Amino acid sequence: MSTNPTMNDVARTAGVALKTVSRFVNGETNINPLLAARIADAIVALGYRRNLAAARIRPGWTSKILGLVISDHANPYYSALTRAIEQTVRARGYLLISASSEEDGPTFDRVVERLLEQRVDGLIVVPPRSPGRPWAQVMPPIPPLVVLDRPSDAADADTILADNAGGSELAVQTLIAGGAHRIAFIGDSLQLYTMRERFAGYKAALTVAGHAVDDALVATDAHSHEDARASVIRLMREGNPDAIFAANNRAAIGSLFAFRELGHRIPMIAFDDFEAAQLAEPPISVVTQNITEMGHLAAERVIDRATGGEKTPTTTVLPTALVLRGSELPDDILIEKV
Amino acid sequence: MSTNPTMNDVARTAGVALKTVSRFVNGETNINPLLAARIADAIVALGYRRNLAAARIRPGWTSKILGLVISDHANPYYSALTRAIEQTVRARGYLLISASSEEDGPTFDRVVERLLEQRVDGLIVVPPRSPGRPWAQVMPPIPPLVVLDRPSDAADADTILADNAGGSELAVQTLIAGGAHRIAFIGDSLQLYTMRERFAGYKAALTVAGHAVDDALVATDAHSHEDARASVIRLMREGNPDAIFAANNRAAIGSLFAFRELGHRIPMIAFDDFEAAQLAEPPISVVTQNITEMGHLAAERVIDRATGGEKTPTTTVLPTALVLRGSELPDDILIEKV
Repeated sequence: MSTNPTMNDVARTAGVALKTVSRFVNGETNINPLLAARIADAIVALGYRRNLAAARIRPGWTSKILGLVISDHANPYYSALTRAIEQTVRARGYLLISASSEEDGPTFDRVVERLLEQRVDGLIVVPPRSPGRPWAQVMPPIPPLVVLDRPSDAADADTILADNAGGSELAVQTLIAGGAHRIAFIGDSLQLYTMRERFAGYKAALTVAGHAVDDALVATDAHSHEDARASVIRLMREGNPDAIFAANNRAAIGSLFAFRELGHRIPMIAFDDFEAAQLAEPPISVVTQNITEMGHLAAERVIDRATGGEKTPTTTVLPTALVLRGSELPDDILIEKV
Repeated sequence: MSTNPTMNDVARTAGVALKTVSRFVNGETNINPLLAARIADAIVALGYRRNLAAARIRPGWTSKILGLVISDHANPYYSALTRAIEQTVRARGYLLISASSEEDGPTFDRVVERLLEQRVDGLIVVPPRSPGRPWAQVMPPIPPLVVLDRPSDAADADTILADNAGGSELAVQTLIAGGAHRIAFIGDSLQLYTMRERFAGYKAALTVAGHAVDDALVATDAHSHEDARASVIRLMREGNPDAIFAANNRAAIGSLFAFRELGHRIPMIAFDDFEAAQLAEPPISVVTQNITEMGHLAAERVIDRATGGEKTPTTTVLPTALVLRGSELPDDILIEKV
């Protein structure tokens, strides 16, 4: 026998119908105030607490939980995204479960399966670098799904992306306008959708300006800032670049370490802002994503679908912005400006 | 009628007892291999998936979920802690729900209540800056509880802290050994346990060395790096400090911005490592916590208690380490060394 009071106990003590207690507990407001007061008294007297774990298995009830799968808790980009999603989700009365795939397909699959076992009301996911199983092979029921940052093969999902190609093209155009034409691309694996898009923007800017795309200036092995540092040192010794487009924040930090080690810098613009960017000398110019807007939109979309709203899957591409702080300029122009 | 297959359906299709299916689904290994193969086939054929939300309300089953409440998803200290906890929790077959209090007592109380409604198997919490309700007022049942980073009033909780006072005392001793005696303390509110401890370590080092503690050199309003920057500029103009002890990473970043604005630096050591520390010129010396060890220990402790292990609450204080990188030295000694 359970020692926890149930909704039935509350109904009996308050002398009202079970259905009325249920409506009260779910936060409905159109309840006779006298009955509501008796229910509230009974809840306090009995020490009743909702059991949302149990609620999920009753028809018409929901867990009030949303699941989020990001790539890495320790990457500031995903921390900021998690924070933005949590704030919106909480304002709408939901709890967010967040977990990470560590960019690994099988881990992603296991985490998604655990969230489905938990009967979440909706899922927001960032697909991992190495793909997991196709969504068509995931056993139904699958709750409303929003895919973030990178597209997926899910047929019935909303997708929210940033304008990676456009932001990168503008950054590289800016370096070209400053006089550069041998611009290095330092980034992560082109297996990643975002990297392919940023690389496409880089190539487009060079091509439009009539400059060759030189493979000797492209490094796509920068998973960490240590890897990026080594690539930049190698390229600056052997490839004679006159500027750097750092395609993520680890590439940017690695470049700063390389500049220090080599004793000189060349112009640079980075994709995604990072804490150290404004502390560098000169401060680093960046392409920024509106992470707060992306998280907010994802949370709104998944809750709308979970509560019976819009059912047609949409793809939204959010604009990026270029923030110029000085690092895009060569030293001689920087000194003139001072 | 449910359209989802149940464990009963699996048992019927496989021609085995329900209890055997239950043991199989829970990962037990001492099952007749022939029966296990039949159960596995039936699970695939029927498309059965565990319902852990429902499992929690059956006696003897658990949700296999642990709850974590941190202060802020966007603070790198808590992101690293979340990652360490998640890795340990996952290795033991649990899912981690993480949520943040944003340092606010009422928000902390609401989040804890939501996790209890979800019937988590255990809770790991960082108490918020402004205290929530006393734990004695939280309605039972409360699952095993581990309190991290700051102590709480919970009677039956394990507590894991870092040696904030000892690490700070050593940092300030190091600044004194380098010739400083008017050392500024830049930190957050002394309402925070960790700040009180770091301030105690600062005072102890000064007192042992025979130096006065000058209130004009103490700023405890550094909630953000902008606040810290303003305090450092004010203190360096009015208080004549000869070194800085930055009591958290925002205080350190604020100090770096202030140094740039003022055009000169003084020796500094910071509590907690941060991404920009190694990029600064000179690189910033820091007191580091073993965040991975703290997260690992918290996860192990809560799972051990949730699975019937050790019941006596313990308090563990983890050591800190001083990492010297150059910023603890005055410019004249730094230049001699080069």
